[in-house]
Formats: sequence, structure tokens, C-alpha cells
Amino acid sequence: MQTFSLAIHGGAGTILKKHMTADKENLYRAGLKQSLEVGYSILKNGGSAIDAVLAAVTELENNELFNAGKGSVFTNTGTHEMDASIMDGGNLGAGAVGAVRSVKNPIQLAHQVMMHSGHVFLGGEGAIDFARQQGFEMMPDDYFYSDFRYDQWQKVKGSDTFHLDHDTPDDKKFGTVGAVALDASGNLAAATSTGGMTNKKFGRIGDTPVIGSGTYAKNSTCAISCTGNGEVFLRTVAAYDVSALMEYRGMTLNDAMHEVVMNKLKPMDGDGGMIGIDSLGNCSLQFNSAGMYRAYRKSDGTSEIAIF
Amino acid sequence: MQTFSLAIHGGAGTILKKHMTADKENLYRAGLKQSLEVGYSILKNGGSAIDAVLAAVTELENNELFNAGKGSVFTNTGTHEMDASIMDGGNLGAGAVGAVRSVKNPIQLAHQVMMHSGHVFLGGEGAIDFARQQGFEMMPDDYFYSDFRYDQWQKVKGSDTFHLDHDTPDDKKFGTVGAVALDASGNLAAATSTGGMTNKKFGRIGDTPVIGSGTYAKNSTCAISCTGNGEVFLRTVAAYDVSALMEYRGMTLNDAMHEVVMNKLKPMDGDGGMIGIDSLGNCSLQFNSAGMYRAYRKSDGTSEIAIF
Repeated sequence: MQTFSLAIHGGAGTILKKHMTADKENLYRAGLKQSLEVGYSILKNGGSAIDAVLAAVTELENNELFNAGKGSVFTNTGTHEMDASIMDGGNLGAGAVGAVRSVKNPIQLAHQVMMHSGHVFLGGEGAIDFARQQGFEMMPDDYFYSDFRYDQWQKVKGSDTFHLDHDTPDDKKFGTVGAVALDASGNLAAATSTGGMTNKKFGRIGDTPVIGSGTYAKNSTCAISCTGNGEVFLRTVAAYDVSALMEYRGMTLNDAMHEVVMNKLKPMDGDGGMIGIDSLGNCSLQFNSAGMYRAYRKSDGTSEIAIF
Repeated sequence: MQTFSLAIHGGAGTILKKHMTADKENLYRAGLKQSLEVGYSILKNGGSAIDAVLAAVTELENNELFNAGKGSVFTNTGTHEMDASIMDGGNLGAGAVGAVRSVKNPIQLAHQVMMHSGHVFLGGEGAIDFARQQGFEMMPDDYFYSDFRYDQWQKVKGSDTFHLDHDTPDDKKFGTVGAVALDASGNLAAATSTGGMTNKKFGRIGDTPVIGSGTYAKNSTCAISCTGNGEVFLRTVAAYDVSALMEYRGMTLNDAMHEVVMNKLKPMDGDGGMIGIDSLGNCSLQFNSAGMYRAYRKSDGTSEIAIF
């Protein structure tokens, strides 16, 4: 039997056990499990890595616990602006969307950009026009509303403060979701999606929609999805750097991710982490912050769901 | 005396001698020379690499011959949407703007993003709000108007066709401008700016504003500015890949750029080129298309201005 595996994350940051009730923890674990099972079943039935990461991230986008899709945070004008990207390690195909509103599943839109736009990266109103042309479901604002996201926003509204979701004092929710997969045909894929920063303004774009920084996949090396302080992930080209260390230095996935997360990102205050899978199906889930919502399942029978 | 050097480009593509009159060629050469001299004089007077690339790209943005700033092409709605990015190799500081309108010098705005926004990448209306807050000069639409750009647009308007500037049949103008520099203190910097694609829609973002793809700088390796088929430069993380090949494989600047331009970009139809400078002041200007508007000048007295 060919090896296959899937790993997912629901964001990283100052996730502390002392701020987490047993009920909340169970909800997060259930959300991760749901996403993991949906994606893994696709791989188990011979589906592609792209379809698996797409399905896994869609599940996380539909879960209001995570800051992506339905659970996206509020911008400084009370809207929800989402970013997402996806990459196919087989042909280096890639799709990304930045600052899209109203789209239920930004990761599905990124996938359609990859498949049908002739481009890699679409932003703002133009990306929404493309979504409409592709027949995407547009959701009313209240689909993205939740009391806790609204409360998060009210605490910093009117100030110049913006918060990465995971930097909110009470650590209610966290910043990004993502998935990486190896399918039984040897294809790698990666996908990442986010609702951005609470009270963000100026059309800030983080690493999530940027191929090479937030998302990268190449069959000969690895698939990577990142979460954290996006500006530092952009400046270090974090996702592609793991691939380059493997390809050019011969490092293992685990060692390359350690080098980037601990020795490159951390000294630059690049708090966060990343998940990766290599061409043999090895999974690595690393972070330099207190916690990262994460899970993996491999065809050898091993699996884990963890937070702290 | 410490070594310093500057290289610039004004876009790459199917630039053919047979389509170029002597007068046109002289105008392009004069534009490149003007940019080169302004940037080089800053380095010669002990100025920083960042200030040199900023000044050189500003000159090219102000020259209507080049597709950036004043010379930007028309989008499918008759507007001008510009992208730019800048990176400081000394501290890996970076700034980028995507899909900005009305701003006279997008590269100056990218620089302000790097210095004062707390972010790396701002897009669309948000980036324009930031520009206003920073006191940027906003130009009326007619500042960006020229007969030849308008004619270019009319030829494809109403169709689903979009053109990279350098793919227009008559090769009137070309796609991107950029600069890389090493200053006498050993700092590297890179800057890139573009007016995008004629008749573009859907808010397409190319490689120009993406750190790692269109622009990258790191003192220990190189400064790179790219021009060409942006989607492929995004998928290959082209600019950072040169740095990675130097750092992890020990390749020279010239060999690393050759590997990326000829062996990675070209097989994926990534037509175009890039300019680079390493920490010793070596310059390399490479392209896999028919031509690239380019020039360099080094403190050892060597210099060149070339097109084909």
C-alpha cells in the first residue's frame, strides 16, 4: 500500500492551558478531528492531496471556532476580509485570494483561481467579481457574525490597535487554519486560510495568501502551511525556505522546519508555527509559541490531536 | 575605497531590434541613464542602498516610457492599478503595496509601508488610505494618461484578453521597473514597481509586490528585482530562490541567477528576467526573453546600458 498522510492546524500563539476550560478544549479537539477525518477519508479512498487539503480547510472555515471563513474576525470597519491560498506540489500550480468579503469558503475560491483564472493571486473586489462569475455562494454579513468576535473587536475598536487573533488578552480564538497532505500517488499539496487581524485596517495582507511565505508545496520536497506573525513569515519567505533547505542542503523535513521556526522566525519575533509533510509521508508540526491547534493522521496508523 | 554598485531594469520581453526606431531606442537609453545616474550619485556620496534603489525606481516611475507610475497601462475599467515592493538586505525589512491608484510613486509608498505601517504588505483602498495619512501626493487620472497606453488598451478592450505590457504585438512598452544596489557600508537593497497588465481584471496581483518572488534582498547573499510573466515568478518564488541557491548551495550570484532564469523559469514559460547584485558588488542581468531594458554601474568604473 502506498503511504499517505494529512496534517492540519487551526492557528498558533499564546494558547495557554490555564485559559482553556475543558468544554472549550473539547470543542477545539472535535473541530480538528472533524476536519482531519474529512480530509483523511479522501486520501484513504484514493483521492488527491489537493482535494484532501481543500476539504480539510473547508471544514475549518465552516467552524466558527477558528479565525477563517465563518469564524473570521472583524476589521476596523466591522467587515470581514479573508485571505487564502493553495498549492499543488505536482505541477507547482497555485491559487490565492486576498481581502475577499462575503465568500463562504475563501479556500475554494483560491482553488478556482488556480484552476480557472489564468492567474495565481487575485485581490479585493476583483477577486469577488471572479467568485461571482464562478457561481460562488455569497453570504450575508450575519453569517460571519458571532458574539465573541464582536466582543473582541469592541475591545480595540476606535483605537489604532490591531490584534492578531492569538494575541487577544483572553485568548479566545486564534489566527489561521491550514492543511498539508501526501496522497497515495505521491502528490503533495498545501492550503491555508485566515480571517486576518481584529481591527485591522489599511488593507493589510499577511503571509496566508502569499505563495512561498504562508503556503508552499513541491512533490520532491514538502508541503507547508504556516500560522503566526505574518509579517515575519513574509520577510523570511518561511514556507519556501523549508523546501529550499531540504532541496539544497539535504536536510530532513523535521530539521528544516526546526531551522526555520526556531532559528530564523523566533529571533525576528516571528511567533507561530507551521505544519509539513514530505514525499515519504513524514509529518512535522512545529511552533515557537505556547501552543498550536494541530492534528495529523498517517496511513501507518499513527495520529494525534494536540493543542499545547 | 569600499565597493558599491547599482543595477536597474525597465522590463523584459519580446523586445526586438526590428520593432525599435533609433529615436525610440535613444529615448529608452536616456531614461535608463537618468535613473542610473540619480541612483549611482547617491551611492557615490555615501548614501544607502535603500535610498539609491528608491531614487532610481522613482525616476523610472516618473518616465512615461516605462510601465510603472506615470507610464502605467490601463486596466479593463480604464483605471491604473500599480504594485510595488522594496526590501532592505540589512535587516530584512520589507514594504509592498498592491493595486494602488492615484499614487504618483508607488515605490515611495512601499517604502513608507516598510518604515511606518507596522506591516509589510498593504492592498487596494487600504493602502491608498495609508498613503493619504502619510501625506502622499495623489494625482488626477490624466497624469497617468498617454495616447499610446490608451491605444494599447483600445486594442483589447471589451475582450477577455489581457496583455502583459511586453506581449503587445507592436512592443510599444514593457512591463516592470526595478533596481538593486550595494552601498559602501555593505548593505544590499532591492525595489520593483509595475503598472501591471493592459486590460487586466479581477484584481490580478503579480510577483512585483510579493517579497521573495519579485523582490528580495539579504546582505549575506544578494539583492534581486524581477520582471516577466509574474505568475511563474510567484510559483517558483524566483527572487528568494537565487538567495537560497547562494546560501545553501554556495553558488555564485551569476550561476544562481542562471539556474533560476534558464532552468526553472524558462521550462515553465516564465518569460522574463532579473537583475542582481551580491555582497561583493558583482552585478548580473539575465533574461530568457528577446530583450530586457537594463543598465548597471559599479565603483570599479565599469558600466553598461543595454536593451537587446
